[in-house]
Amino acid sequence: MTDIQIGGAKRARRAYSFDEVAIAPSRRTRDPQEVSTTWTIDAYRFALPFIAAPMDSIVSPTSAQTLNDLGMLAALNLEGLWGRYADPSALLEEIKQLPEINVTSRMQEIYAAAPVDPDLVTHRVMQMKQAGVTVAVSVSPQRTADLAPRAATAGADIILIRGTTVSAEHVSGAGEPLNLKEFIHQLDVPVIVGGCATYQAALHLMRTGAAGVLVGFGGGSSMTTSDVLGVRVPMASAVADVAAARRDYLDESGGRYVHVVADGSMGQSGDIVRAFACGADAAMLGSVLARATDAPGGGAHWGAEAWHGQLPRGQRNVLTQVGTFAEVLNGPSTHAAGAMNIAGALRKAMATTGYSDLKEFQRVEMVVTA
Amino acid sequence: MTDIQIGGAKRARRAYSFDEVAIAPSRRTRDPQEVSTTWTIDAYRFALPFIAAPMDSIVSPTSAQTLNDLGMLAALNLEGLWGRYADPSALLEEIKQLPEINVTSRMQEIYAAAPVDPDLVTHRVMQMKQAGVTVAVSVSPQRTADLAPRAATAGADIILIRGTTVSAEHVSGAGEPLNLKEFIHQLDVPVIVGGCATYQAALHLMRTGAAGVLVGFGGGSSMTTSDVLGVRVPMASAVADVAAARRDYLDESGGRYVHVVADGSMGQSGDIVRAFACGADAAMLGSVLARATDAPGGGAHWGAEAWHGQLPRGQRNVLTQVGTFAEVLNGPSTHAAGAMNIAGALRKAMATTGYSDLKEFQRVEMVVTA
Amino acid sequence: MTDIQIGGAKRARRAYSFDEVAIAPSRRTRDPQEVSTTWTIDAYRFALPFIAAPMDSIVSPTSAQTLNDLGMLAALNLEGLWGRYADPSALLEEIKQLPEINVTSRMQEIYAAAPVDPDLVTHRVMQMKQAGVTVAVSVSPQRTADLAPRAATAGADIILIRGTTVSAEHVSGAGEPLNLKEFIHQLDVPVIVGGCATYQAALHLMRTGAAGVLVGFGGGSSMTTSDVLGVRVPMASAVADVAAARRDYLDESGGRYVHVVADGSMGQSGDIVRAFACGADAAMLGSVLARATDAPGGGAHWGAEAWHGQLPRGQRNVLTQVGTFAEVLNGPSTHAAGAMNIAGALRKAMATTGYSDLKEFQRVEMVVTA
Amino acid sequence: MTDIQIGGAKRARRAYSFDEVAIAPSRRTRDPQEVSTTWTIDAYRFALPFIAAPMDSIVSPTSAQTLNDLGMLAALNLEGLWGRYADPSALLEEIKQLPEINVTSRMQEIYAAAPVDPDLVTHRVMQMKQAGVTVAVSVSPQRTADLAPRAATAGADIILIRGTTVSAEHVSGAGEPLNLKEFIHQLDVPVIVGGCATYQAALHLMRTGAAGVLVGFGGGSSMTTSDVLGVRVPMASAVADVAAARRDYLDESGGRYVHVVADGSMGQSGDIVRAFACGADAAMLGSVLARATDAPGGGAHWGAEAWHGQLPRGQRNVLTQVGTFAEVLNGPSTHAAGAMNIAGALRKAMATTGYSDLKEFQRVEMVVTA
Repeated sequence: MTDIQIGGAKRARRAYSFDEVAIAPSRRTRDPQEVSTTWTIDAYRFALPFIAAPMDSIVSPTSAQTLNDLGMLAALNLEGLWGRYADPSALLEEIKQLPEINVTSRMQEIYAAAPVDPDLVTHRVMQMKQAGVTVAVSVSPQRTADLAPRAATAGADIILIRGTTVSAEHVSGAGEPLNLKEFIHQLDVPVIVGGCATYQAALHLMRTGAAGVLVGFGGGSSMTTSDVLGVRVPMASAVADVAAARRDYLDESGGRYVHVVADGSMGQSGDIVRAFACGADAAMLGSVLARATDAPGGGAHWGAEAWHGQLPRGQRNVLTQVGTFAEVLNGPSTHAAGAMNIAGALRKAMATTGYSDLKEFQRVEMVVTA
Repeated sequence: MTDIQIGGAKRARRAYSFDEVAIAPSRRTRDPQEVSTTWTIDAYRFALPFIAAPMDSIVSPTSAQTLNDLGMLAALNLEGLWGRYADPSALLEEIKQLPEINVTSRMQEIYAAAPVDPDLVTHRVMQMKQAGVTVAVSVSPQRTADLAPRAATAGADIILIRGTTVSAEHVSGAGEPLNLKEFIHQLDVPVIVGGCATYQAALHLMRTGAAGVLVGFGGGSSMTTSDVLGVRVPMASAVADVAAARRDYLDESGGRYVHVVADGSMGQSGDIVRAFACGADAAMLGSVLARATDAPGGGAHWGAEAWHGQLPRGQRNVLTQVGTFAEVLNGPSTHAAGAMNIAGALRKAMATTGYSDLKEFQRVEMVVTA
Repeated sequence: MTDIQIGGAKRARRAYSFDEVAIAPSRRTRDPQEVSTTWTIDAYRFALPFIAAPMDSIVSPTSAQTLNDLGMLAALNLEGLWGRYADPSALLEEIKQLPEINVTSRMQEIYAAAPVDPDLVTHRVMQMKQAGVTVAVSVSPQRTADLAPRAATAGADIILIRGTTVSAEHVSGAGEPLNLKEFIHQLDVPVIVGGCATYQAALHLMRTGAAGVLVGFGGGSSMTTSDVLGVRVPMASAVADVAAARRDYLDESGGRYVHVVADGSMGQSGDIVRAFACGADAAMLGSVLARATDAPGGGAHWGAEAWHGQLPRGQRNVLTQVGTFAEVLNGPSTHAAGAMNIAGALRKAMATTGYSDLKEFQRVEMVVTA
Repeated sequence: MTDIQIGGAKRARRAYSFDEVAIAPSRRTRDPQEVSTTWTIDAYRFALPFIAAPMDSIVSPTSAQTLNDLGMLAALNLEGLWGRYADPSALLEEIKQLPEINVTSRMQEIYAAAPVDPDLVTHRVMQMKQAGVTVAVSVSPQRTADLAPRAATAGADIILIRGTTVSAEHVSGAGEPLNLKEFIHQLDVPVIVGGCATYQAALHLMRTGAAGVLVGFGGGSSMTTSDVLGVRVPMASAVADVAAARRDYLDESGGRYVHVVADGSMGQSGDIVRAFACGADAAMLGSVLARATDAPGGGAHWGAEAWHGQLPRGQRNVLTQVGTFAEVLNGPSTHAAGAMNIAGALRKAMATTGYSDLKEFQRVEMVVTA
């Protein structure tokens, strides 16, 4: 990134969003059928390199199974409605219908009314496990020490520790903070941790023993972190920087490959393509999946930031539904703007530029546009 | 183009669109009557340096003749409605009237219902030939081996091989891929091939023996390739890069001049002017012609991407009709925003900057704007 | 301006518009009363450094007198309605009322119906002269040889030769083109000539003996030259470049100071301030004056480009009227967005940055913004 | 800032607004409870580093007390309604209700109808003093010599001298201009002076003995200084430049730390965060506070520029009210876009990036975005 002087002694790097970059086909092309999008992390192999984001509008125990059957991983938020209510269906319906004017305060009420129930957490993991799902669950850094071991014991296959920002070095005056490195070492399951957005932050997270790191602050259209906190790292640059940390850590560790998972700002299949082009190994999907007719949100879409009690930093968006999860992922598409057949779009983009797998595709030529 | 570090090890070049550049008049002017816009490719000479894009909304056997009479080339898409239906008039009318909500899926049905009919392909070429038209037809790379020889045999004068991206080196596991170089050598007619968008891709296409290359991915307002595939190369930079390949190939080949045809993103006459200023020899026109009252689409406009069965990447746009093909091309204009008298606009731009032919005009001074 | 590679061998300079720059107050301020905005060209001295643009919506024989009384120059277009019709009042009213749909074609008819009448041209000049006005008139390059001497003989004080682009070296096959240098030498009155937009073009115009050059292509909101011709030179850069030509010509000529008149893209008083900051000696005003209740257009605004018979490149805009010419120029303002008291705004800007006259103010510190 | 050639000999620096920058979390995080936002200037210490802007829509004697109780400073404009009218409540209500069409002219009347009353000025200061408020009052440069000593005598604790631009070197032909250095020396209370926007201007203001300088031209959404005067210095660059002047003056003066107060363009909590990140010690708040239900403007918001008699440069905006001053400052928030719990947002931003106090936070890593 270009180094810029904002003024006086303050310098900053110019960072680029997915909107500002594109891939450029060049002298070779390939048949889309010759292209592989498989993704392997730890012992798990998926036909599609996507993770459904741990948001109540996307991942329920039921939809996790559907998405798993379609070849991808889905992460249930253990601190969401499914970790608080035995049957949240009526609440999901209510949130979808809430008028704009009081949606934030009513969501704050709904989530505050029922605390996270440890037994329910155990139950959710077992429920998915019994259905044959590769179980991924997500916890916040604050609840990790409490909930993650419980989920592991109940049979979770992959655990995500996900917050706006997660660092390897958290300073706290209130008791001993979580030592990520020790904690991950003791857990028996692979951990994916984030968000982070810089080379340094990612490198430190990689050193904790995580199997993957989440790049970004977990949201695009539905988040207002920039408005509220002044925090923003445009995703194309963030992914490329963290990919550089992956390369350097691979060398430093003598061969441990930590997966880079782009998380946020990918509202159209073209953005997902750009994430891989910048160096991502997998993409965490939000709004793209929320548009499915079988998503639990019924077209509404929100993240955990939207119901924060003191400082909400996200909104409930109501999206146009375009087709089933199967159609959104594998088509056929009847929608011209990148909302359907996103796996097909990724394959076509790889074919158009002549690459046969995702690792090679990270080398694709790119341009920066206005 | 400026080399930019997106982040980590990922670098990209800054590429410019037609919107970001303009021509700058300087110390000489000229009478518009002193200016020539003739274009000669192979044995064919045209008063206007334009090709009507092979889109069903623009080129029918009838409109090809009208456009030919007005001094320009028009390319019929052999895989479009005229290659599938004996009389597609009712379908053209239906597409124009389709409500936004199901336009994509209905177009998919219409084109899927009738496969391309080889006899009809032969008939279309002969029909135009008999009318005295300089016959240009377009085929996709997938159907080239099958349809192009048939069209040549029937009398086609110029053949376009046109896809989102066409490369000289296509990798396919399903049988032997088309060897463009051999194929073009065997065909007896000049071939124009594309799209491409980089120096390298263009140079390799030039080496196949093509008479011309198409620069761009074939569409502006009606295409969503960037949204769906993440693919975009802004046209001003793409045309200038391919013009550099033309110059280098001219030297390498000992004098073969391959024509650079800008294809896409030229919705106003000012964009067409910029394409020539960046180095184009000819411009393939889409929406500008779709606004003609005698265009087959009747104001509606769409490309082959819009009815792709699995991954549609274009939309049907309904445009305001402004006048006949004759008025759109040669005026007089009654429209202030670059939709009419586009040949007059090109002549005026050349006159205003003091150039007398299109080859010289490629040297015109330009500025980059916000 | 920064040199940029668009692609291949095509290079261009980055040029800036008034929107992209601003003036930056620094360590000195001054009382607005201490500031002078007087402008002197040839033998003429004006309280305000403005010229009313030769547009029928702004300058009539009557409004020229009003503007003159307010301390500024106003240029009557001899080829406009007042040079074609003895009493065009009804036509001005009709143009104002025309529906958007046929405004261009009806304006083409109105101007085509009556050719420019040489006797009327003489009459207009004498009419203004008798009223005590400092008479400025404008002619196109095409009609200069015919109309300019006639206007001079009738008593015009200043003559403008104004076209989209005027060069010192016009190439024409149809008879001998106008030799500007000889022509200006023979005319007995000072000539202001343009538009131009580059250092080279301006330098050559200065060498013809012109008293001033017009920078720009004569319009902002009401022109579509960029859409139609692909021609655009952002004004901040154009004015700064031509100011450099003024400095170099001053040296080359041994002391002839040619005035730089910014012409176009100044829709708010802040833009006018920026024009002077970039090096202008005077500003030609269009839409700012068209908002006056006593402007002949009655709130409608258009230039000669709007009624061009073959290739119209401008629109009739209907603007909100804000007050009389006196209030627009000298206030008091009751409008917060730079449409009133523009002379007061210029004085305040100069005072805020500590400068006492316009020549000094050309050195003011500026910033480039997003 | 990057040095850019606009054209010819005119150069300018690229300056950045708060919209174009963001903070980037990196490898350390911290508990929000561990973070301090206290601000100390002269003998005064505040829990929150904010000053309520001297605007009638925000600061009345009553609201000053409320804001003081919440831990921040509030500055009463002695030349506003409260310095002109014994009871302006009805006028505040009227301004809120005024239709857009004549709001500027009616506000001009209201403020012109009653001149500033020196006795009322004294009364306002004493009224607040008696209520136990840390009294801050604001005067314009024009009225400073007259009103500031009067306010100091009446008990004001901090005096702001605030104008669009205030310089240490004002040139005036009408009598002796105010010698800021002598004046501040003689006043017994700390003075905060501005606006200014450049290193040089700020350095000279610091040398007058001011305790703080205001950076910016006093307004964001409600001001039109750029439109009217062509004056703009984007805030991120301005704050960073003035912070550099603070550092250099600290050295030059042998240890006098002059506070940098960002003033304007901070409409969301994220902008406030960015101001501190660029180097501000405190932030002067306008529209953020005008959205409080207990603000005197009742949701309407305007500054002194809006009622300037000759050249108004601001507008009355009507904003959506979101909660009480207490909720706006300290939450809980029920609004996702940075309008509530702004102190909490600042603390969260500091915690997310691992900083424990505002001075340290000035070193936070930043990025420049599109």
